[in-house]
Amino acid sequence: MNKLAGIKAVVFDLYGTLYNVHSVAQRCDEAAPGRGMEVSVLWRQKQLEYSWLRSLMGQTISFEQATRDALAFVSAHFKLELDTAAMETLCDAYLNLSPYPEVPDALRKLQEMKLPMAILSNGSDFSISKVVGGSGLQSFFSHLLSVDAVGVFKPDSRVYALAGKAFSLAPEEMLFVSSNAWDAAGAAHYGFTVCWINRSGNTFDELGISPAVVVGGLDEVPGLLLNGA
Amino acid sequence: MNKLAGIKAVVFDLYGTLYNVHSVAQRCDEAAPGRGMEVSVLWRQKQLEYSWLRSLMGQTISFEQATRDALAFVSAHFKLELDTAAMETLCDAYLNLSPYPEVPDALRKLQEMKLPMAILSNGSDFSISKVVGGSGLQSFFSHLLSVDAVGVFKPDSRVYALAGKAFSLAPEEMLFVSSNAWDAAGAAHYGFTVCWINRSGNTFDELGISPAVVVGGLDEVPGLLLNGA
Repeated sequence: MNKLAGIKAVVFDLYGTLYNVHSVAQRCDEAAPGRGMEVSVLWRQKQLEYSWLRSLMGQTISFEQATRDALAFVSAHFKLELDTAAMETLCDAYLNLSPYPEVPDALRKLQEMKLPMAILSNGSDFSISKVVGGSGLQSFFSHLLSVDAVGVFKPDSRVYALAGKAFSLAPEEMLFVSSNAWDAAGAAHYGFTVCWINRSGNTFDELGISPAVVVGGLDEVPGLLLNGA
Repeated sequence: MNKLAGIKAVVFDLYGTLYNVHSVAQRCDEAAPGRGMEVSVLWRQKQLEYSWLRSLMGQTISFEQATRDALAFVSAHFKLELDTAAMETLCDAYLNLSPYPEVPDALRKLQEMKLPMAILSNGSDFSISKVVGGSGLQSFFSHLLSVDAVGVFKPDSRVYALAGKAFSLAPEEMLFVSSNAWDAAGAAHYGFTVCWINRSGNTFDELGISPAVVVGGLDEVPGLLLNGA
């Protein structure tokens, strides 16, 4: 049985999936010499925690606010003594992320297969446009979908529902691609056909569901869609 | 101004606040010699993440399920190769937690001050009874309040609302005591007067609100309530 039969569109997570969030580590290393990756990893973890916690508290904040708040925590935790300008510079790094090396070519192949593509991200409309536009990949996507439209973060089902509305497709007709295991699990619970990109040999989270397919990089996805998985 | 004037009851978080969740580290060390604390810390982090994520996904699971799922993740992540019996033994450690050393005496002082006390926990009715009963502290509490009653985890406001119903008090008339910064922040947003116990010199989370008072241990709380904070 081909798990990817009937896929009519591809929906991508942005942070950590198409774009490397630890490409900010170099900037972090300038602020905290020798500890850039450690700072970057905790910053990312707190950014996600704060997005989940604020959603559970029923509070609407932007992902950019969660990013700033998480950096303020990390700055205090590591005693970095960052001033406002340094904080701004670091947060701006989240607007100028690098795509993973295999991403542009894989998107080109998917486009040649006539599959419509969208990004569905926790980021704001502004941030998504900035990141995607800045990397020159905007033309691949028919929709850039932000949580701005619903005021809550993934894995709340209201976020995932945005893709079905954009494409007028049922969840299972869309391949949802994420490197974030919690996001892949949330999308699978919602009903998407899910591809987890596991670039670093991580362990999938135990959230009661598995992705349909697991790949080591986005370059494997066009072949799976052509030849079956 | 006395921030604690008008307090008519005290509501405690359980895991990490009255009871040391890393008292399971010794058991973890038997399963993963030399790495008990590392295993215990990731287990706790994933346990919390899974409680938040399942709540956001709209799924009702028990905290014990989140605990088991988190251990399954940690076992795979650290390649511990735990069998079912070993997993059960470790999860049982969460039913036999030790209170922090200063806790029994501080509860006694609060009881002498005629303050009614409750526990409000992410745990199930069964787990809360087991932990509190096993440590001989049950008689201090007029209510053991579990998320079982609402099917969602903290910091969802439906959980915090259980305390007001139990005591027929407004949130600000209750002192909510937690060592978990995210829980203290959630409780403060809900409207409780909040005491954060910071036993280890941690940094408070940046979630848009601060606790009314911060202490280094529960032993400081009776004095603050008597003399003002």
